[in-house]
Amino acid sequence: MSIQIHLVGPLGTNITIEVQEEREIFPTLRKYGKSGWSSGDLPAGGVSLPLAMADIFDWSLIGARPYTNADGEQAVMYRGQSYKRRELEEVDTKKLKLPKIVKYSRGARPTDLPHLKEGEDGGVQYITLISFRGGGKVLDAYVDAAKAAGTAG
Amino acid sequence: MSIQIHLVGPLGTNITIEVQEEREIFPTLRKYGKSGWSSGDLPAGGVSLPLAMADIFDWSLIGARPYTNADGEQAVMYRGQSYKRRELEEVDTKKLKLPKIVKYSRGARPTDLPHLKEGEDGGVQYITLISFRGGGKVLDAYVDAAKAAGTAG
Amino acid sequence: MSIQIHLVGPLGTNITIEVQEEREIFPTLRKYGKSGWSSGDLPAGGVSLPLAMADIFDWSLIGARPYTNADGEQAVMYRGQSYKRRELEEVDTKKLKLPKIVKYSRGARPTDLPHLKEGEDGGVQYITLISFRGGGKVLDAYVDAAKAAGTAG
Amino acid sequence: MSIQIHLVGPLGTNITIEVQEEREIFPTLRKYGKSGWSSGDLPAGGVSLPLAMADIFDWSLIGARPYTNADGEQAVMYRGQSYKRRELEEVDTKKLKLPKIVKYSRGARPTDLPHLKEGEDGGVQYITLISFRGGGKVLDAYVDAAKAAGTAG
Amino acid sequence: MSIQIHLVGPLGTNITIEVQEEREIFPTLRKYGKSGWSSGDLPAGGVSLPLAMADIFDWSLIGARPYTNADGEQAVMYRGQSYKRRELEEVDTKKLKLPKIVKYSRGARPTDLPHLKEGEDGGVQYITLISFRGGGKVLDAYVDAAKAAGTAG
Repeated sequence: MSIQIHLVGPLGTNITIEVQEEREIFPTLRKYGKSGWSSGDLPAGGVSLPLAMADIFDWSLIGARPYTNADGEQAVMYRGQSYKRRELEEVDTKKLKLPKIVKYSRGARPTDLPHLKEGEDGGVQYITLISFRGGGKVLDAYVDAAKAAGTAG
Repeated sequence: MSIQIHLVGPLGTNITIEVQEEREIFPTLRKYGKSGWSSGDLPAGGVSLPLAMADIFDWSLIGARPYTNADGEQAVMYRGQSYKRRELEEVDTKKLKLPKIVKYSRGARPTDLPHLKEGEDGGVQYITLISFRGGGKVLDAYVDAAKAAGTAG
Repeated sequence: MSIQIHLVGPLGTNITIEVQEEREIFPTLRKYGKSGWSSGDLPAGGVSLPLAMADIFDWSLIGARPYTNADGEQAVMYRGQSYKRRELEEVDTKKLKLPKIVKYSRGARPTDLPHLKEGEDGGVQYITLISFRGGGKVLDAYVDAAKAAGTAG
Repeated sequence: MSIQIHLVGPLGTNITIEVQEEREIFPTLRKYGKSGWSSGDLPAGGVSLPLAMADIFDWSLIGARPYTNADGEQAVMYRGQSYKRRELEEVDTKKLKLPKIVKYSRGARPTDLPHLKEGEDGGVQYITLISFRGGGKVLDAYVDAAKAAGTAG
Repeated sequence: MSIQIHLVGPLGTNITIEVQEEREIFPTLRKYGKSGWSSGDLPAGGVSLPLAMADIFDWSLIGARPYTNADGEQAVMYRGQSYKRRELEEVDTKKLKLPKIVKYSRGARPTDLPHLKEGEDGGVQYITLISFRGGGKVLDAYVDAAKAAGTAG
């Protein structure tokens, strides 16, 4: 058996890495992800993961790198763009019920593909990378073991 | 002989799996499909299959997962989006003849590609994943054996 | 030497088949084409072949299947869509000279990519799959041997 | 070492040819190009080559075929479309300086991708395949040896 | 282990080169880049690198070639288009703070994809290839050793 993993580098370089076993897929994504290589595109509108993963998701799986910006805000760098962490608290009133959401997003740029931009026409537009919401169960394969240990500690 | 199957994972990851024989294609799609991996894109406007397959189609072939939502409705989860089952009953009047259709669709999102959206401009817009209609014969390769047994029982 | 043929299946599945010799390319396209697999996209606006091939083109090469519809019209099924045969007779007047054309086309759907649609804005729009026109010589590699024998007989 | 060359055929067929050495790339492009296979897409707006190559460029490298049309004009057939040779003579006046250009272009069709069309909105629009201009040096790898011999003779 | 590098040539040719070790990726990009082959697309809006790399970036990694144009300006040729070096000096007033930026850009052409164009609608529009800005650390893998030696000397 042979498995090929298709990757894009920070300069746009397209390569394909061959591994011999299925269990090598995730470690390979992690290894290259630490140098900013990523595989494929996240779904338009951003990927959605369970809220319980907001602090333990392994960003290296998508070639992203978490950091704290100059204003002390949490952010991730993904394909040369910075996405800020935003927390939308639960709303539970008679009129409106919204779950807690942790999302990473950034302001839209003129060179973003039009369909990726969210927000009102003429108003502020943004791009969502990832949303953590809902009670789904934690996907162990996506967890950063070091962070999970820290969270549990 | 060697056959490669190109797959996209839940985080957008692009991989290629090699199998040795043609008869391994469908089992491989099923195996990876159960973890949310899918191969290629369904045709724009959704794929069309015979009505007789509406209850026995094997969703794992396209990386989708059927479930019942909180309102008790049947739905499938496909690439992070939920598509609801809708049944359009046969219409057979003098004015209008429409066959019975079972379709899985969802409301359009701002980040969907424009040409995939159906419905009137300014009105409700939706995306169709799959339609079951017409008297075509059941394609055995696409059938979920367990469900087919259940249906027959 | 090794040659890979890239194919798309009826559910959008992307696979790559390896063959050892160049002369296996067309038989492989035919074999998979009979089950609805096709390779790549026809050029936008449809492919153009010599008029002499209109009745002997081997549709399996592009994963299409000729059939006669409920109204007795000739049509081909290609990637889940039906294209009807239309014959445009030769026009040879002082004002206008048009060659005979046999084309397979269908009405445009909302989910077709905009640039593929032909016809006036606001008027009827259609998609052309293939046009047979002009005196070019028959390409033997594209011929359905059984049909060619029948035509000759 | 192994090198794969990705090709598209006249019916849109996608194949990959494996060769063992770098020096086989161009002969392989030429061999398949003679049957109308081409690799990848020319840059939008057309590729630009030195003027000195206008009569010796090897069209088979891009799967194109030069011919003389019914009106005696020079043209090339590329992916089912005909591009005519146009010569823009040098302009060297006080007001305007333009170098000599030999270009192959065709009128735009409704099914061309919008961004490939040049010319004013509402006016005549066209698609450029290739422009020969400027004093750059001849790239030997792109030359048709037979034509170069004829030109020199 | 085997690694494939996907490249696009000056005529649009698509090839894949196989190397045996990860440390061969960058030398292979450099080797082919010197003949104008490049891998994948730079991010829309251009890639961003640290300011300290403005004079030592190895352009061959992206198949680009630096040169001095007829007006004595520094430029790079990338995929048949010329991008000029522009230096935006630091602005540090009460009203406005902007870091020093060195960028390579060119005027937009009608055949550029719409979302790649920057600048106001109706005004001057341009395409950015690369920006050097900020205090990030030099990425040794991207450095042109000869230039770095010259800069240090």
